[in-house]
Amino acid sequence: MVEPIIWENGVLKLLDQRILPHEKRYVECNTAENVANAIKDMVVRGAPAIGVTAAFGVVLGLKEGKNIDEIYSLLLNTRPTAVNLKWALDKMKAAYEYAEGNIDFVEESAVKLFERDIEYNRMIGKSGLQVIKDGDNILTHCNAGALATAGYGTALGVLRAAKEAGLNIHVYVDETRPYLQGARLTAFELMEEGISCTLICDNMPGFLMKQKKIDKIIVGADRIAKNGDTANKIGTYQLAVLAYFHDIPLYIAAPISTFDFSIECGDDIVIEHRNPDEVRKVGDKLIAPENVNVYNPAFDVTPANLISGFITEFGVFNSVDEILNKIND
Amino acid sequence: MVEPIIWENGVLKLLDQRILPHEKRYVECNTAENVANAIKDMVVRGAPAIGVTAAFGVVLGLKEGKNIDEIYSLLLNTRPTAVNLKWALDKMKAAYEYAEGNIDFVEESAVKLFERDIEYNRMIGKSGLQVIKDGDNILTHCNAGALATAGYGTALGVLRAAKEAGLNIHVYVDETRPYLQGARLTAFELMEEGISCTLICDNMPGFLMKQKKIDKIIVGADRIAKNGDTANKIGTYQLAVLAYFHDIPLYIAAPISTFDFSIECGDDIVIEHRNPDEVRKVGDKLIAPENVNVYNPAFDVTPANLISGFITEFGVFNSVDEILNKIND
Repeated sequence: MVEPIIWENGVLKLLDQRILPHEKRYVECNTAENVANAIKDMVVRGAPAIGVTAAFGVVLGLKEGKNIDEIYSLLLNTRPTAVNLKWALDKMKAAYEYAEGNIDFVEESAVKLFERDIEYNRMIGKSGLQVIKDGDNILTHCNAGALATAGYGTALGVLRAAKEAGLNIHVYVDETRPYLQGARLTAFELMEEGISCTLICDNMPGFLMKQKKIDKIIVGADRIAKNGDTANKIGTYQLAVLAYFHDIPLYIAAPISTFDFSIECGDDIVIEHRNPDEVRKVGDKLIAPENVNVYNPAFDVTPANLISGFITEFGVFNSVDEILNKIND
Repeated sequence: MVEPIIWENGVLKLLDQRILPHEKRYVECNTAENVANAIKDMVVRGAPAIGVTAAFGVVLGLKEGKNIDEIYSLLLNTRPTAVNLKWALDKMKAAYEYAEGNIDFVEESAVKLFERDIEYNRMIGKSGLQVIKDGDNILTHCNAGALATAGYGTALGVLRAAKEAGLNIHVYVDETRPYLQGARLTAFELMEEGISCTLICDNMPGFLMKQKKIDKIIVGADRIAKNGDTANKIGTYQLAVLAYFHDIPLYIAAPISTFDFSIECGDDIVIEHRNPDEVRKVGDKLIAPENVNVYNPAFDVTPANLISGFITEFGVFNSVDEILNKIND
């Protein structure tokens, strides 16, 4: 399986997701600043992967002799929407304080965070088997795969688990403009895994649903509010409305680190707006008048009432309240 | 205003829409075969434009000494969905038969068809003013502009008429993958016209609607069945569902030549499926694994019950029955 994040001899190697699947090249990060830029520039993307990457960024920053609070804010201010970033930084800061500045301990904590992310993804995969039937046609959006995590993936983790369990599934992949995570990353991962898939444009899922060619939708998440409202890649909201209209269930697959119990609802989630050139261009190829106005939100928020269930490492839940009850059990 | 189709000294010049807006180059057609290929390869596209182009193709074919039936079927078999193609060919064949093979008469008929298309588009524009309010934010999909017709446009004709009437409007433009007619053609036309617009990706309109940033949707059509079911560019159906969910009206702007009174409903409309490479690539740039499976319908069908009205050269109608009553009046 593809390895998006490698920690080796004190160097962080990130698979450059901007040039996949045509080129497989790693970007080396030796400083916290390198890591912050890699997150901002989307060398690495996907909520859990951003969290794990930032954890190693803390280790690199401490080795440079930087102040922990300075490192924390440098990394936190890279991208606003995915809560896993803050979650991972809080963990690292707590480890630093607990170990009274012992860098080896902080490094061990980052490695543990990395390993646990993969472990949780495998558990999410197993949980997800509850909702998958043999013969299912499943739509996914963006990339919630190995590349969006330390490995294995959340939404794609469920599909991997289904394949490992011998279930016969077919996956429709939204290409997911402007960054084309579906076309470039998800299609690539599924084909490497031998999972049958079909690539479509973002204006086609409705027509597929109308023809009853989609049984369910599984996507990842970047931040889930206390009431279940979920921020995920732009386009998730309209998929949820289309699914509702066609009576098709939509599931969010995400680890508990993606839940932000500190905010009441989706209105409080900050949506990142990115560079207009992402829309005006595909890679470096201009596809529109070069000075055209652009609206380019990277995420949207799907209200909880359009979500059929949350697939987590602890099982599948209909609501965040059920998850809190389970955790506090 | 941009001229997509020029008939000059017995040569048909088609503005090559595959390379707009970055390059403005005309493709010259001297034979019916040239014209058939230009339609197939999408040098020219848009239902009314295809009809007018085919009419000149008949003239060229007759000048070559080809048989009228041979010309008819050569041109008809280029693209299956837009009914304006058959409509124009029928008109030309009738002119040929009426004039007992007089090519000059057939040529005059083709020129008349061309001129009438622009005239009808201006009438559509005027009709459309009934549904536009000052300050409206209007979403459009694909390109139903001057480039999709002999000139002026259907859906964009309404926007042009609104601008000419001094109304202040703002237009959101779906980029419209895979062929990017929105990004390349509609954004270009609107900017040339000085109509304020914003380019978005096809996964963004739902989120805009949720934020109440869209007041109405106006699109063109490729074929409208007797019950009002409408074939148009892929993605129109899901826009209609999203509009219904958010209580936003969706209008179809099209000349009467787009109505196919010979078919009862949308199920009878043939949907063209195009080359998978259109999805795998943007222009000639590969954006996905090169052998990935692809689903690439060029059109979808929106059921009549999701359509708020038809904007035609005779006025705005709630249903096809109303149109038939008006025509038969």
